[in-house]
Amino acid sequence: MKKYFFTPGPSQLFPTISKHIKNAVNYNISSISHRGQQFKQIFKNTVDSLKKLLNIPDTYYVFFLSSATEAMERIIENCVEKYSFHFVNGAFSKKFFEIASDLKKEPFEYEVDYGKGFNFNAIAIPKKIELICFTHNETSTGVALNVNDIYKFKKLYPNKLIAVDIVSSVPYVDLNYSLVDIIFFSVQKGFGLPAGLGVLIISPQALEKSKYLANKNLNIGSHHSFIELVNYAQKNQTPETPNVFAIYLLEKVINDMLKIGINNIRKNTDIKAKLLYKFLDNNDGFKPFVEKKSVRSKTVITSEVKIGSQEIIKKLIRKGFIVGNGYGIYKDKHIRIANFPAHTIQSVKGLITQLSI
Amino acid sequence: MKKYFFTPGPSQLFPTISKHIKNAVNYNISSISHRGQQFKQIFKNTVDSLKKLLNIPDTYYVFFLSSATEAMERIIENCVEKYSFHFVNGAFSKKFFEIASDLKKEPFEYEVDYGKGFNFNAIAIPKKIELICFTHNETSTGVALNVNDIYKFKKLYPNKLIAVDIVSSVPYVDLNYSLVDIIFFSVQKGFGLPAGLGVLIISPQALEKSKYLANKNLNIGSHHSFIELVNYAQKNQTPETPNVFAIYLLEKVINDMLKIGINNIRKNTDIKAKLLYKFLDNNDGFKPFVEKKSVRSKTVITSEVKIGSQEIIKKLIRKGFIVGNGYGIYKDKHIRIANFPAHTIQSVKGLITQLSI
Repeated sequence: MKKYFFTPGPSQLFPTISKHIKNAVNYNISSISHRGQQFKQIFKNTVDSLKKLLNIPDTYYVFFLSSATEAMERIIENCVEKYSFHFVNGAFSKKFFEIASDLKKEPFEYEVDYGKGFNFNAIAIPKKIELICFTHNETSTGVALNVNDIYKFKKLYPNKLIAVDIVSSVPYVDLNYSLVDIIFFSVQKGFGLPAGLGVLIISPQALEKSKYLANKNLNIGSHHSFIELVNYAQKNQTPETPNVFAIYLLEKVINDMLKIGINNIRKNTDIKAKLLYKFLDNNDGFKPFVEKKSVRSKTVITSEVKIGSQEIIKKLIRKGFIVGNGYGIYKDKHIRIANFPAHTIQSVKGLITQLSI
Repeated sequence: MKKYFFTPGPSQLFPTISKHIKNAVNYNISSISHRGQQFKQIFKNTVDSLKKLLNIPDTYYVFFLSSATEAMERIIENCVEKYSFHFVNGAFSKKFFEIASDLKKEPFEYEVDYGKGFNFNAIAIPKKIELICFTHNETSTGVALNVNDIYKFKKLYPNKLIAVDIVSSVPYVDLNYSLVDIIFFSVQKGFGLPAGLGVLIISPQALEKSKYLANKNLNIGSHHSFIELVNYAQKNQTPETPNVFAIYLLEKVINDMLKIGINNIRKNTDIKAKLLYKFLDNNDGFKPFVEKKSVRSKTVITSEVKIGSQEIIKKLIRKGFIVGNGYGIYKDKHIRIANFPAHTIQSVKGLITQLSI
């Protein structure tokens, strides 16, 4: 039986992935040297294509890390001497805060109930804050922020850095990269790749902060400090032997997406989200966890299940549809449905049919 | 034309890899949840098989990181308050030292000329040193240490921790893990996997050191501190979404190696190394870089090339044989030939034939 993975990451692989994996094996991609010309070309093509797809400014740097979690750590190490500020409304925004704390910084957190957005107008950022951290799309609860709210902070606080986690909203989110400084994601969600690669994008201003901390003789990490990452990125290389296989696959999937067109991908995502929310809003057995429609995620759709989620998850598995548990304390109460580019309208309709039986 | 990668990493893939990759795709390994039962079983099987293959004590912990370079960073973060000691005879032992320095520790280095071993009897380790770092097999130059020399340090300094880099000698090196504390490698060399996974093995004593530093409120990192890694490893999980694909492949290749038998793998490595050194020692165009036979690596064979290495590297490529450049300043002077389990005796003989023309 064909399986459809609607889990919010790892998730359904992009439809072309198995072809690209086959080619990677045939072309010996995993045996080439990470210091040779062939790899450098793969690195450059991947960065160039990503910048084209997401409309990232030329002056921004793109780094390859191992996970979004690592990205959080490297951001704190390289951009925070002491004070970061975190908008927390779920497990992943909380994790970003906790990582800052683990690294012996003194982070601030502004926390609201999980499943809620923020009343940003009511919040003033203390003067000493160096970095403001947003989780654009909370994978744990399915709350998505309005990007315009994020931009306002850059205008209000031009000397502070802005970091945005787009782990589960990329490539859907139409972000104006020039209005933020640090952006990161992993590839096993919206790009439909196997897990094991994180992507970190930084502005020249973020790099300057890293250099400032280094000049003060502070610990900004070793091989994955922004300074080391830039040194190698300028040669189209990484400091260590990277996950060449995944970088190759990412290049190929981005090029597939460029052919489809980012606008079509976004339009399709909207259509599928509308179908799912319409069903959940109108079916007595379900209730979208995020009540306020303006902050409902289009890419991770979370619903309460009246009879509890475990029974329906098991029932769906028998039909070949795999959806996510609720996160943490919501494990047995919620289902989470990923709505990524790899998910076709047809498979979403198939899922809805099964949910409604 | 079939290609034979004798580069010292990334290198030739293990012969069964393409079959395992195909299965990974067919079984949706890259879509399964890293918090689910299926992944936990893969994690457990991989750790159990690795312990069996390498004879690692039950009480030791096995962690999955992204690279050996990351392993160096995590070891310094978790085992060194201030003072580490590094035996340096090439680029990778040097890197370990530099990482300690980057992390604002005060590392000591004992450096000899590249291509040489150490006169260990002449070296006393200062009292304040917390961690002694050995690079068992210097990938940059092809020097291999005698493991008995390493064990002596544990006997002389039982309260210091001993770290051993076996990046390019695993699984060949027959190490008594119970006489050292921290061991690490990456999978794109002796295991013949695609790059993007590092493996770190630690003793209970190393974990204690990490806890001691944490209790002093020192920065031991965040998601990849030993404490976090152990918390998740005890649940057969990793703190972040890991490279599930690579962990799956590692399990499969280890099981293939268990079937072949580690003794056969080691015997074959010896046979191939003997063939290569015999040729290089007896051919006027070549001269093994490591003069002293007792410290010549069996797994990374480095040779000076009288007429320079670039011409012969190009000639070999035309015949389908890819060997490594010299490292760093030796780029145009040396060739480096990997001798890993993926390299058959027949392909080594084929390489020698081409070298001798």
